[in-house]
Amino acid sequence: MPDTLPPDSVGLVTPQTAHFDTPLALAGGKTLSDYTLVYETYGTLNAERNNAVLICHALSGHHHAAGFHDMEDRKPGWWDAYIGPGKAIDTERFFVVSINNLGGCHGSTGPASTNPETQRAWGPEFPVLTVADWVHSQARLADRLGIERFAAVVGGSLGGMQVLQWTMAYPERIANAVVIAATPRLSAQNIAFNEVARQAIRSDPDFHDGWYEEHGTVPKRGLKLARMIGHITYLSEHSMGAKFGRDLRTDQLNFGYDVEFQVESYLRHQGDTFSTSFDANTYLLMTKALDYFDPAALHGGDLATALAPAQCPFLVVSFTTDWRFAPPRSRELVDALMRADKTVSYASIDSPHGHDAFLLPHPRYEAVFGGFMRRAARDLQLEETT
Amino acid sequence: MPDTLPPDSVGLVTPQTAHFDTPLALAGGKTLSDYTLVYETYGTLNAERNNAVLICHALSGHHHAAGFHDMEDRKPGWWDAYIGPGKAIDTERFFVVSINNLGGCHGSTGPASTNPETQRAWGPEFPVLTVADWVHSQARLADRLGIERFAAVVGGSLGGMQVLQWTMAYPERIANAVVIAATPRLSAQNIAFNEVARQAIRSDPDFHDGWYEEHGTVPKRGLKLARMIGHITYLSEHSMGAKFGRDLRTDQLNFGYDVEFQVESYLRHQGDTFSTSFDANTYLLMTKALDYFDPAALHGGDLATALAPAQCPFLVVSFTTDWRFAPPRSRELVDALMRADKTVSYASIDSPHGHDAFLLPHPRYEAVFGGFMRRAARDLQLEETT
Repeated sequence: MPDTLPPDSVGLVTPQTAHFDTPLALAGGKTLSDYTLVYETYGTLNAERNNAVLICHALSGHHHAAGFHDMEDRKPGWWDAYIGPGKAIDTERFFVVSINNLGGCHGSTGPASTNPETQRAWGPEFPVLTVADWVHSQARLADRLGIERFAAVVGGSLGGMQVLQWTMAYPERIANAVVIAATPRLSAQNIAFNEVARQAIRSDPDFHDGWYEEHGTVPKRGLKLARMIGHITYLSEHSMGAKFGRDLRTDQLNFGYDVEFQVESYLRHQGDTFSTSFDANTYLLMTKALDYFDPAALHGGDLATALAPAQCPFLVVSFTTDWRFAPPRSRELVDALMRADKTVSYASIDSPHGHDAFLLPHPRYEAVFGGFMRRAARDLQLEETT
Repeated sequence: MPDTLPPDSVGLVTPQTAHFDTPLALAGGKTLSDYTLVYETYGTLNAERNNAVLICHALSGHHHAAGFHDMEDRKPGWWDAYIGPGKAIDTERFFVVSINNLGGCHGSTGPASTNPETQRAWGPEFPVLTVADWVHSQARLADRLGIERFAAVVGGSLGGMQVLQWTMAYPERIANAVVIAATPRLSAQNIAFNEVARQAIRSDPDFHDGWYEEHGTVPKRGLKLARMIGHITYLSEHSMGAKFGRDLRTDQLNFGYDVEFQVESYLRHQGDTFSTSFDANTYLLMTKALDYFDPAALHGGDLATALAPAQCPFLVVSFTTDWRFAPPRSRELVDALMRADKTVSYASIDSPHGHDAFLLPHPRYEAVFGGFMRRAARDLQLEETT
């Protein structure tokens, strides 16, 4: 709720929607006959239509990446630190497109939408999607917007996987790739955390095999647990220690099961908030897309072969205390890109904030990210659009 | 189910019980008017009664640490690799006492026991216990067995915390301390994982605020989730990767929510087994005891001051890939012991098995552990008892 908008903000923004009635064939074998995507744009598409940047979101993200929806908004979009006039993704040069992925719960067609065949909500019958499906749908949105080729496709975490998929599926349509805090595939431990979150949701009696909406229930307990587990993996052990340590919420131990430590209070609050704002079927679907992504598996386990089609320069960024997708996962990607003779810059950013660091302001991260984007703008001979 | 007992096994063992009717004042302010402890012993107490070793168990452990209950047993006790004739804790020299802690669910008085004041099960009204309470009750068992001073008190994980407590609370009653894969206090992240597990149990509708027995239910969903979360923290990322990788259970992805990856199958199985064999109130209580343990906090945050009363030599062991209680946590303990002028040996064991490594056979771990115990036996001039 800014009284005035900050000068480096993209300002007030309004989500837009695009409806598609050309069927989308999905990797899992099903087809979506029609669907809607919700997205936001920041900046101005230039006459050459070559200054567009696509933002791909992470597990619980959405299209609202920058700016404010109205003057009452308490917080700007989730990546406001890096999108705006003069920021790493400089909206005075770039036209930014930020989308809510298919299957999401923020306006794009997803499990809570109406299944045209049954005229009831899709619920658990909404098809499981893959990163490839998302990128396919994003390419169609680009067609609609008249964007033949993105100046850059950019994303963190699950968003970084979408960027990788872009470089392999549409190499001629992406001029630069920025892959942040990501991995070319989940480890067994990553899958294990996702599976516990899914089990928490699916074993909640209010889940009703995914038909909770028809039962008038919300599987809040499961969503809360899933989010609590997620949060532990987003923060570093160090940042949790620095933020909460063993601080007590009250003066002394109460020898019971109410909240005692500050960290418990924080996690419960995060879980409660999430459980009333996110859709359970979407959460399941997003974690599955994470689990499935493994381009190397389609090429005999060789990531370099999988990445062979890519044509653009890459920026890969990891954060030292990120243990969800730790720096070695990014280095694995960098090594494969080098073996495949690609142009790649890699930065390991010293941050105490774990996986969440990709969302937070950081001078060196900003310098590296911003530098890569300025070089991209120069190569494309982009003028200021404002 | 050994056809014949292995020669280095303690053989067939029978749990014993000891009832205490002297009230036990607890750290939380309540008092247990009377209670029963179940325990096992291996080897022979010598005439001098100075060859006894106390085994302290971890979160989900119990008294059955070695040998077999009958010839049909599929598996020996949980620490059979290190307790037996010729093993690290050599039962030809030592008399081993292994106890199920108060509050447990394997025979000692706990939440499922009858509350003498109400004549119904204690349930959630069973007092929250601390490591100090356990050690107090263990000292009383030692009195009952005529053991004035233990040749060693030994434990891993939560068991290691009990060992530390012994050195501070009863320094004259412990000749040697072995603290394995432990920590002098939980980190915020450790507490966070415990809290998610507790929330999983407490939010299970079958939990009924802890009165599930009276409702004829078992909070299986919550216990399963708690165990799944626990298992992720017991294994290293590497061992999970080596054991399961991204292997599929079937030939191909099914684009649904049934088990697909082997690691999912493993976790579900571990969770299911645990959910029918462990008591939910006990799980809550044990995690709280873990959270509370923080001897330094009682001494202005100075662990060396807290450890000042200790008199015995220490062996501290950590495992390189243990991320639940990582090597730096053991080094923090070692540093404090050094500052307090104690005698301490420290071994960092190179193992891929994470926290679970403390349970598993390992040549160097066995050599270090066995060497420390042989030196202890020599210092105490223990003869072979068999």
